[in-house]
Amino acid sequence: MRSSTPQGPQRPSHRPPPPRPTTGKEAPPFAGPRPHMSDIQKILIANRGEIALRVIRTCHEMGINTVAVYSTIDRDALHVRFADEAVCIGPAASSESYLRPDRLIAAAEVTGADAIHPGYGFLAENAEFSQICADNDIEFIGPSAETISLMGEKSKAKEEMHKAGVPIVEGSDGTVGDLDTAYEIASDIGFPVMVKAVAGGGGTGMRLVREADGFERAFNGARSEADAAFGNPEVYIEKFVEKPRHVEIQVLGDGQGNVMHFGERECSIQRRHQKLLEECPSPVVDEELREEMGAAAIRGAEAVDYEGAGTVEFLVGADRNFYFMEMNTRIQVEHPVTEEVTDCDLVEYQIRVSMGETVDSEERPPMEGHAIECRINAENPFQNFSPAPGDITAFHQPGGHGIRIDTAAYSGYRIPPTYDSMIAKLIAYGKTREQAIRKMRRALAEFVVEGVDTTIPFHRQLMNDDRFKQGNFDTRFLDDFEMHAAPAEVA
Amino acid sequence: MRSSTPQGPQRPSHRPPPPRPTTGKEAPPFAGPRPHMSDIQKILIANRGEIALRVIRTCHEMGINTVAVYSTIDRDALHVRFADEAVCIGPAASSESYLRPDRLIAAAEVTGADAIHPGYGFLAENAEFSQICADNDIEFIGPSAETISLMGEKSKAKEEMHKAGVPIVEGSDGTVGDLDTAYEIASDIGFPVMVKAVAGGGGTGMRLVREADGFERAFNGARSEADAAFGNPEVYIEKFVEKPRHVEIQVLGDGQGNVMHFGERECSIQRRHQKLLEECPSPVVDEELREEMGAAAIRGAEAVDYEGAGTVEFLVGADRNFYFMEMNTRIQVEHPVTEEVTDCDLVEYQIRVSMGETVDSEERPPMEGHAIECRINAENPFQNFSPAPGDITAFHQPGGHGIRIDTAAYSGYRIPPTYDSMIAKLIAYGKTREQAIRKMRRALAEFVVEGVDTTIPFHRQLMNDDRFKQGNFDTRFLDDFEMHAAPAEVA
Repeated sequence: MRSSTPQGPQRPSHRPPPPRPTTGKEAPPFAGPRPHMSDIQKILIANRGEIALRVIRTCHEMGINTVAVYSTIDRDALHVRFADEAVCIGPAASSESYLRPDRLIAAAEVTGADAIHPGYGFLAENAEFSQICADNDIEFIGPSAETISLMGEKSKAKEEMHKAGVPIVEGSDGTVGDLDTAYEIASDIGFPVMVKAVAGGGGTGMRLVREADGFERAFNGARSEADAAFGNPEVYIEKFVEKPRHVEIQVLGDGQGNVMHFGERECSIQRRHQKLLEECPSPVVDEELREEMGAAAIRGAEAVDYEGAGTVEFLVGADRNFYFMEMNTRIQVEHPVTEEVTDCDLVEYQIRVSMGETVDSEERPPMEGHAIECRINAENPFQNFSPAPGDITAFHQPGGHGIRIDTAAYSGYRIPPTYDSMIAKLIAYGKTREQAIRKMRRALAEFVVEGVDTTIPFHRQLMNDDRFKQGNFDTRFLDDFEMHAAPAEVA
Repeated sequence: MRSSTPQGPQRPSHRPPPPRPTTGKEAPPFAGPRPHMSDIQKILIANRGEIALRVIRTCHEMGINTVAVYSTIDRDALHVRFADEAVCIGPAASSESYLRPDRLIAAAEVTGADAIHPGYGFLAENAEFSQICADNDIEFIGPSAETISLMGEKSKAKEEMHKAGVPIVEGSDGTVGDLDTAYEIASDIGFPVMVKAVAGGGGTGMRLVREADGFERAFNGARSEADAAFGNPEVYIEKFVEKPRHVEIQVLGDGQGNVMHFGERECSIQRRHQKLLEECPSPVVDEELREEMGAAAIRGAEAVDYEGAGTVEFLVGADRNFYFMEMNTRIQVEHPVTEEVTDCDLVEYQIRVSMGETVDSEERPPMEGHAIECRINAENPFQNFSPAPGDITAFHQPGGHGIRIDTAAYSGYRIPPTYDSMIAKLIAYGKTREQAIRKMRRALAEFVVEGVDTTIPFHRQLMNDDRFKQGNFDTRFLDDFEMHAAPAEVA
């Protein structure tokens, strides 16, 4: 890391001579403490599963005490076992436990926690909860209520980003009923464009227009089709992004107007907008594009004085233009691939900016090698990825060189049907993408989960898919990905 | 890695533009194929436990088929499950299975394996077995019978290394009965020296002489004490190494006279010559000393045309002089700490030199960060580390950023009393030694092994020991390390 002024945990002085010259820096590019530096002694983790355990790990490494919260069904969960304290906050239903700000605040007060880490999901992007924490003088490890709220309203966020100079998918400002105006807009933003019914869905009332010639027919066709289907002919115009990829930029802001970025993650392998595999770097992003996207993400985040870790999601077209989609104001499920490639601990950085450290926008951790994350979900990939909760009767994690696993599962663990189905994140790191794939393939071959169906067979097949291996895919890749028969599971 | 001509597995061409400029090299500093390049398609692993699994992992990543061998008691072992084929080679007793060259060769012939990887222990340093493999036209992944044999005879090896210019602990050439000659030798090698009875043991007949003045008394005292105790007054003289550390250099030779080194490992944390924790780099080795020790190790290994991975063990005194102890002609248990710090796969390199690739003595993989390995043994550290075989009833591995685990254990695994007691290697990697210790401490806190006693409590206490944290220890460190009472096990 290119930092020069580490502000992080002090290193003890080593007595024996001489000091090792190979010792690297372990601090991120933090510029210094804020005037109102606050010390965090104890963090309550308002979450469960692997992310709760993930946060506990970093807290323990930083010497910070931890409080787990749990619903009655999570009594035997590992985050409860490994936290320094644990508080039961209600029955299994999230609405009665993990989604209850009052119970979380009460648990923080009872245990004397001075900060709350929300993880992802649940209340992580709930502006009200961030505000309630602030009102109760508890540090919310994440952005302000105002920022969460702004980014939560997708059209407002787009507008704000557009103002900050972040490229967005251009289109009509709302619906447009008149052909001439619509045509003018389409010509302005440039073909190809989409004509989309506001009431549309599943392709109905939707037209792709590649050239000016076909516009009139498409516009009228979409309107009448939408009218017939939904009783509402209103349409809007939007730039069509060819073969779009989902590529996101990891940022970290200090809430003082300084934001740094950590490069991109490729997340195009999705099923119904549900990411199944992520990697860093993206096979299509080179250093030039990375700097452009990173600079755009920083512009956007600095415009809102962003505090904490966040992700700016972009669509990247086949022409390598990129467009802001949305910003996630939390740590992402897929953050480990960035950690492996930049050798950073993003949860540590979240905590440090919450403690008042500032970051240097000019710094960027160097990226080295390639990391891939497979989401191991309790789902049956042969039956349309239907959820498969149940008891894990045998659990053997792969290990060895280049393999990282983030999981809260174990042999004997009962996966509750109540929450999300992810049971493990398997991360492979290699010097190159090809090596990372080879490591992932062998790790998947030795990942044993018995008792429930999992996405392991899906990932095994994906690792042998030519288009995937070539990095040649977009967000629609899984639409026509077909699983082979189940028995072909020998690695 | 600074290599320029990778000869390793070909990377497939990626179709989508443009190629990622961040892609690193994945090949070691191999100089090129040998004239008689042989292809290895299938490897039989003549071992069990974590090292068998370790070798299988790399084989699978390289696209090489694997054959496991197992004794009847290892029927349910993971190396059997994850190998492509498995052959039972006899009953539990090693002498009837893992130590039987005839059964191993038969298994290789039956399965058509063209190479044998011996792992460590068992037949790994058995010259006869290396020769038998050669005679049967099976590639032995390791050095020639001649080299193994030479290095196995400790005094001969010392002599050979001395000739090659590797520093050794100087002393009298055998016993010396005459005071004047003894004094001359002692003066030549320089004080402090040890006077040691050949029949001695446990300190009897042993004298440390710090200055010329005390030599006569010590010499006569040792002789008469030895005579009284063992009926044999014969003594020899040896240089005394103050506060010695065990520091070893990892080398890789191609059998063509070219050897490269991978820096050092610190292995001074030992109990009765049994390593319990290893790290890379050593807290006392700086770049200058590393280059000196590396050059000495290379000189020694090149003198015997060394082929394969090997380790040259040195004693390093408080004055930072170093002395050859012995050379291990196999992969070591502690090789992962080197792999983490150099980002190399040493087992892959073993296989590649066996396939005929050559190495470049001028190259050295750069070292980055710090790695620590804790050996998790089924032993009771509160009862003198007595072996504790039995059934593992619960097994939860730590995970997350910077944690690697090499193990063949699982929940429900029965640890046989027949073999060694190591059940897992826990490796923590951090940017600095201090960070690696913090990661190790939290990983140990969440390592759950139920049903048997393990060395986990020992390592937890070690991670909190001031002298260890300061890197201030030598090979006698554990002699006066006292375990606290068992209940103080909360991390």
